[in-house]
Amino acid sequence: MIHKFMPKEYDFFNLFERQVGFAVDAARYFKQVILSGKIDESVLQRIRDLEHFGDDVAHAIIDQLNKTFITPFDREDIYALVKELDDVVDMINTILGRMVIYKLSGVNDHLVKFSVMIDDSVNALALAIKGLRSMKNSKPVLDACVEINRLENEGDALRNKVLAELFEKEKDPIMVIKLKEIYQDAETLLDICEDVANVVESMLVKQA
Amino acid sequence: MIHKFMPKEYDFFNLFERQVGFAVDAARYFKQVILSGKIDESVLQRIRDLEHFGDDVAHAIIDQLNKTFITPFDREDIYALVKELDDVVDMINTILGRMVIYKLSGVNDHLVKFSVMIDDSVNALALAIKGLRSMKNSKPVLDACVEINRLENEGDALRNKVLAELFEKEKDPIMVIKLKEIYQDAETLLDICEDVANVVESMLVKQA
Amino acid sequence: MIHKFMPKEYDFFNLFERQVGFAVDAARYFKQVILSGKIDESVLQRIRDLEHFGDDVAHAIIDQLNKTFITPFDREDIYALVKELDDVVDMINTILGRMVIYKLSGVNDHLVKFSVMIDDSVNALALAIKGLRSMKNSKPVLDACVEINRLENEGDALRNKVLAELFEKEKDPIMVIKLKEIYQDAETLLDICEDVANVVESMLVKQA
Repeated sequence: MIHKFMPKEYDFFNLFERQVGFAVDAARYFKQVILSGKIDESVLQRIRDLEHFGDDVAHAIIDQLNKTFITPFDREDIYALVKELDDVVDMINTILGRMVIYKLSGVNDHLVKFSVMIDDSVNALALAIKGLRSMKNSKPVLDACVEINRLENEGDALRNKVLAELFEKEKDPIMVIKLKEIYQDAETLLDICEDVANVVESMLVKQA
Repeated sequence: MIHKFMPKEYDFFNLFERQVGFAVDAARYFKQVILSGKIDESVLQRIRDLEHFGDDVAHAIIDQLNKTFITPFDREDIYALVKELDDVVDMINTILGRMVIYKLSGVNDHLVKFSVMIDDSVNALALAIKGLRSMKNSKPVLDACVEINRLENEGDALRNKVLAELFEKEKDPIMVIKLKEIYQDAETLLDICEDVANVVESMLVKQA
Repeated sequence: MIHKFMPKEYDFFNLFERQVGFAVDAARYFKQVILSGKIDESVLQRIRDLEHFGDDVAHAIIDQLNKTFITPFDREDIYALVKELDDVVDMINTILGRMVIYKLSGVNDHLVKFSVMIDDSVNALALAIKGLRSMKNSKPVLDACVEINRLENEGDALRNKVLAELFEKEKDPIMVIKLKEIYQDAETLLDICEDVANVVESMLVKQA
């Protein structure tokens, strides 16, 4: 009888890991696409699929949350984690969608750098979330969060550098409009990863 | 004596319906203005009036919330509903304000399509909110939310199509800057309607 | 023993005043820089320092919040206040960073007007936050909030005027891209001040 009020912690952990898993897949695919320089309508379908898989897990987590009396973390933190993880894949989808609309094919070295940083950051996120299982050893979680913060700072500096170069060298205003938006989006993606890391850190602190 | 702690559900329902009513008026007026192609300073006053009427109802809801011990819905959902409904009229005001600043008069067929979708979406919102009164029959609310989601997806596709066309055909970069912003705003308005629908669905689920 | 559950109100008040103090310093420095028209990499370091000092106070407030059982205000309002105050200095940093990237040196009369309004608004914020100490006399807080709202409305009108002028007179599309973003950012800064004022008002109302 009391069983239904017991914390279903492992279910939440499994679900979080599945949701971040789709973000990992999306970031890896994003890097591959940017490295190939072949961005067309066909790549969007794969990201949209990953987005829908992630949505399904997100809904499962919210359902579980509505049914569970005792949760391993603050309910608002669980909501925030689900929403921010969703934003990661959403932003990858937005960037690739815009590149298709703007017909931005071809390898862009700045975007290659961003895509590597984004892939690294999402992988660190997956480590941080995996680390939530063993609260007694918080070092792996904190290390991953530090790495995500470092990548966000590096992304800031990269965006400033490439925008300064864009405004100095590019004479076609329409190309400025396109690339400015894409570079800013790429940096925003690293910001979103940092937002997820902040939620994870907050979960850790409250458990301590 | 106990009366002051009783749920004042009907007051909340009346207030929600009055607030969404001003959004319905604003969306209908927006469609008329876009269809007429006559967008000047004089149209802004009417939207600003509707915005202020909506603000007054929003304040009345928050006041009621601060005074009421038992509410028919989660307090945070009520806050979210009030805020998102406010954002609907706010965004209509922002779009028309920008069109005046950019001197974008004349009928634009893409914007006409957006304005019809926005009007449909806000009308569906009004139905969803009206449906919250009779919790025993959730079908009208859910049907309206499905329609709002459908319109948001259609709006996404329309924005992608019109932006691709804009970047392909328009050679004046300043016109690209102006129309890109207006088309993105129009799609954001459909996103905001979807956000309201999500709050309404969440209210419904928690009552079930 | 009971002492540890006692409200540590004065600590929170001190911390809020210290955090808004860094925003006041940042707004004053912003005005000086805009008036001088000399915006280069060297000015960014000072704003970044103020941002870091503010971050340290923000962390101290969150720590205190996690340790304190009874707080002088709603926990979510305290979180919101800390976050929004952080956004003020962040936005000043963003604007100056963009001006460096865009090489926008020289005195711009419109930006001078904005910088004076921003400085006034952040000073009114500091007064509102200081006023939270003496709940019995809410007039200084409310007066400051009215002033912040007035400045936000004035900022809206100024942004509309300068954007209309920009689109009418500036023929270089790349300059339009740069200045449009900076003017919109400056107005957003006044919006953020209004958001802080709304949190402060909400704190006041709940105490009444």
